[in-house]
Amino acid sequence: MREIEVIEEILLEQAEYLRGRYAVRSEVAVSSKGNANNLLTEADLAVQEGIVRSLSAKYPADCIVGEEGDFARYPGANETRAWVIDPIDGTQNFVRGIHPSFGISLGFAVGGEPVAGGVAMPVTGDVFLAERGGGAWRNGKRIHVSDVADAMVARVEVDFSGPEQREETLRRGNRMLVNAGQIRCHCATVVALCSIAAGEMDGFFHVSLCPWDYAAGVVIVEEAGGKATRPEGDALNLFDGKRGVLASNQLIHDALLAWVD
Amino acid sequence: MREIEVIEEILLEQAEYLRGRYAVRSEVAVSSKGNANNLLTEADLAVQEGIVRSLSAKYPADCIVGEEGDFARYPGANETRAWVIDPIDGTQNFVRGIHPSFGISLGFAVGGEPVAGGVAMPVTGDVFLAERGGGAWRNGKRIHVSDVADAMVARVEVDFSGPEQREETLRRGNRMLVNAGQIRCHCATVVALCSIAAGEMDGFFHVSLCPWDYAAGVVIVEEAGGKATRPEGDALNLFDGKRGVLASNQLIHDALLAWVD
Repeated sequence: MREIEVIEEILLEQAEYLRGRYAVRSEVAVSSKGNANNLLTEADLAVQEGIVRSLSAKYPADCIVGEEGDFARYPGANETRAWVIDPIDGTQNFVRGIHPSFGISLGFAVGGEPVAGGVAMPVTGDVFLAERGGGAWRNGKRIHVSDVADAMVARVEVDFSGPEQREETLRRGNRMLVNAGQIRCHCATVVALCSIAAGEMDGFFHVSLCPWDYAAGVVIVEEAGGKATRPEGDALNLFDGKRGVLASNQLIHDALLAWVD
Repeated sequence: MREIEVIEEILLEQAEYLRGRYAVRSEVAVSSKGNANNLLTEADLAVQEGIVRSLSAKYPADCIVGEEGDFARYPGANETRAWVIDPIDGTQNFVRGIHPSFGISLGFAVGGEPVAGGVAMPVTGDVFLAERGGGAWRNGKRIHVSDVADAMVARVEVDFSGPEQREETLRRGNRMLVNAGQIRCHCATVVALCSIAAGEMDGFFHVSLCPWDYAAGVVIVEEAGGKATRPEGDALNLFDGKRGVLASNQLIHDALLAWVD
């Protein structure tokens, strides 16, 4: 089995589980991680545990990175093969319901470079998959980024994240916030990146992300014809620190780079 | 038939039509109203025409206000009974797909005060209804605003609207953008107001709205236990000009008023 097939199998299993938990979300135990705007639910933990169990059985030698608990780490120098899990990106949206913008993300990287990834959105049932060189797919159909070439009419997701990153986002994103054609903020990076890949959004900006937020999403964007870099223009490496991400349909990438500080 | 029953009947009919158009949205003709960020589709026009036809037959003496064409007007002094139509709020979201945040809104006002309203969201199939004194309902079930009492952990929709309103939004909304627990921007006022009524969002701010954007939504919010005013704190009248709207679950209303300029 190729890694992308393993990713698909795991995501389908976990999406079914999470869809069930979403249906009874008022019964799902919620706690917070340090502050009340950073939530953790029992479902986040259960999904991550399920994925770790599957991966450990199949790839006992590989490094596993994940958002929750002891898995929130960077691989060691000798761990070139790494799996990167976000059990629920958009936990707030999961907990509060409506606009159910949340997804399960599972990426596979070699030497810090994402090479395969998948995102499952339990409410819509959508599964996005991509591996380097093989194109990007939603539910088995090839997807492509939009052909919007003018950032002044582009539809851009600016993720305001938590209050601690708000002033930085407003400062560094100011010209984008003023000038982009349309501003959206759904606050689920994995969903935003898949939206760009599907041609439904055109750009994305976040000042500070962890590897699990974009490990899968950037492969999906790039294989759909888009581009993802640091906001400074540098190439992405999953494990070079908690840094910003700018993604686009490629056509407006330079314009967005010029807008963000 | 009471007005609210007429609203429900019309919305169900139009939602079915619009759901069909959304399914083939790449075939729906799109033009723009003055600038490329203000879209108009044949579906907007068809839904408005359908609603106008139904209302004219039932209430030939009533004033009809709507977003498109000659109906985008304020009632005269003698027209105390007014129907207020937004055929598609969130036309950009309708055209581009994913996060299908758009709705059909139909409000009924007496002397500028909204007294009944309904919003239909064709993709989810949800229909929200409320009449003054009768509570707010989604698909026949009573709904209530959230019990979030601390704006620092509240989930607030800040609608950035078009580029021409962006600097005003950033300036007047700055303290809210910095301090609110969660920021979202789905850019469909009728959906945002229903989200507050359903207890899934806690607040909403827009610097400049037309009556069709909120005629139905404010009745739904208030009947669910929430509150809607001008950002300056004044009571709403649908026809006192294109002005801002601040809505909330009531508990955080004063805190939000203090944050916005």
